Amino acid sequence: MTHSDFKVLAFDVFGTVVDWHGSIAKEIVALGLPVDPNAFASVWRSGYQPAMARVRSGELPWTKIDDLHRMTLEQTLLTFGIDFLSEEQKKSLNLIWHRLAPWPDTVDGLQKLKTKFTIVTLSNGNLGLLSDMAKNAGLPWDLILSAEVFRHYKPDPETYLGVCEIFDLKPDQVMLVASHKDDLLAAHRCGLGTAFIERPDEFGPHHQRADLGRDPINTYHAKNFLDLANQLGCLS
Amino acid sequence: MTHSDFKVLAFDVFGTVVDWHGSIAKEIVALGLPVDPNAFASVWRSGYQPAMARVRSGELPWTKIDDLHRMTLEQTLLTFGIDFLSEEQKKSLNLIWHRLAPWPDTVDGLQKLKTKFTIVTLSNGNLGLLSDMAKNAGLPWDLILSAEVFRHYKPDPETYLGVCEIFDLKPDQVMLVASHKDDLLAAHRCGLGTAFIERPDEFGPHHQRADLGRDPINTYHAKNFLDLANQLGCLS
Repeated sequence: MTHSDFKVLAFDVFGTVVDWHGSIAKEIVALGLPVDPNAFASVWRSGYQPAMARVRSGELPWTKIDDLHRMTLEQTLLTFGIDFLSEEQKKSLNLIWHRLAPWPDTVDGLQKLKTKFTIVTLSNGNLGLLSDMAKNAGLPWDLILSAEVFRHYKPDPETYLGVCEIFDLKPDQVMLVASHKDDLLAAHRCGLGTAFIERPDEFGPHHQRADLGRDPINTYHAKNFLDLANQLGCLS
Repeated sequence: MTHSDFKVLAFDVFGTVVDWHGSIAKEIVALGLPVDPNAFASVWRSGYQPAMARVRSGELPWTKIDDLHRMTLEQTLLTFGIDFLSEEQKKSLNLIWHRLAPWPDTVDGLQKLKTKFTIVTLSNGNLGLLSDMAKNAGLPWDLILSAEVFRHYKPDPETYLGVCEIFDLKPDQVMLVASHKDDLLAAHRCGLGTAFIERPDEFGPHHQRADLGRDPINTYHAKNFLDLANQLGCLS
């Protein structure tokens, strides 16, 4: 497999493209909530996988991430004893996922990768969220794809294979770009190429990631999107 | 209803954003097919609504436009007695819908409209087709939406209301922009705003459109996208 065989790069978004932890912590500080902003971000995010698991198992009907985020926000506020936010304030706080900040290399890297590949999202975030985020942060996607299109959350195979089907491509013509090894492993099992991106600060300043080493299953391993663009010959 | 109430503009694509007739006729000439290129374009397109009707009625299972275009291409080739194209040539000809040319005002108009509104497609074209077209023609969509997302073809209400649901908006916060009155009427019946765009050349040089007059159901009536941007206060 050489990089010239790939036609489409599909990007995980939360953590890979945007800094959810830093963006949430910053907003919690700006709101003046009397909590540790890093702890708040971590606890809110920790509800994410279990909430999606309830949808994947069939316990909940299809529920979009905006609504799962709102459920986990309520739990998080309870955990931190915050009971004084108005409905309007909670609604606005929940929409922070629509305006998460990109990593410093994100926009430049995507612009470079876009010169050679079709670049798309493959995120569990819903379409409205991803569209707002792209408009706000200037993310130059060729197509925004979401679990919402496939009515399956990653790591269900329907998501990775769904990208191939949309572009009428074989799995080995599509590469998943992500900073999470479970996501990449699931894509690899479907026959897609995989590119791991190190995002050492994804989980905040107090969390040292122990999973940043090279993994032989991955087709590429890159520090960031500029490094990936370089490895894929896009810097010219 | 004033234009400040609209948040999202949803665009019909074939005919409204891109010139399908002219693009097809041009490619038929370039291919050197021994047929009237305008007649070929018209006949191919005339199979479009009946093919979608078979999906809408349930006679066919969900079938994406690429595949419906291929079915109607076969019929069109038969009509014109063209039996010498290879599979590769037919495949390439069918993909012309992925590289249709925009009208002269399209890209500038969309850029202006995008400064004030979220601009999305709402097309019966499939996602891969619309994504290729946007990349090729430089169409700056905030989000590409398709019948493929809703598994319903326009004018089914699920498509118009689906846009509202994705952005968590009421119907009167979304406006359909189209050059076809049946599409606009269906959107109007769902409570959306409507903007009619005159595209006098949509059906080629030998077809005089008789339906370009103002219609009281439409919220806006514009010559083209620049005129619409002007009416919506986007020219500053």
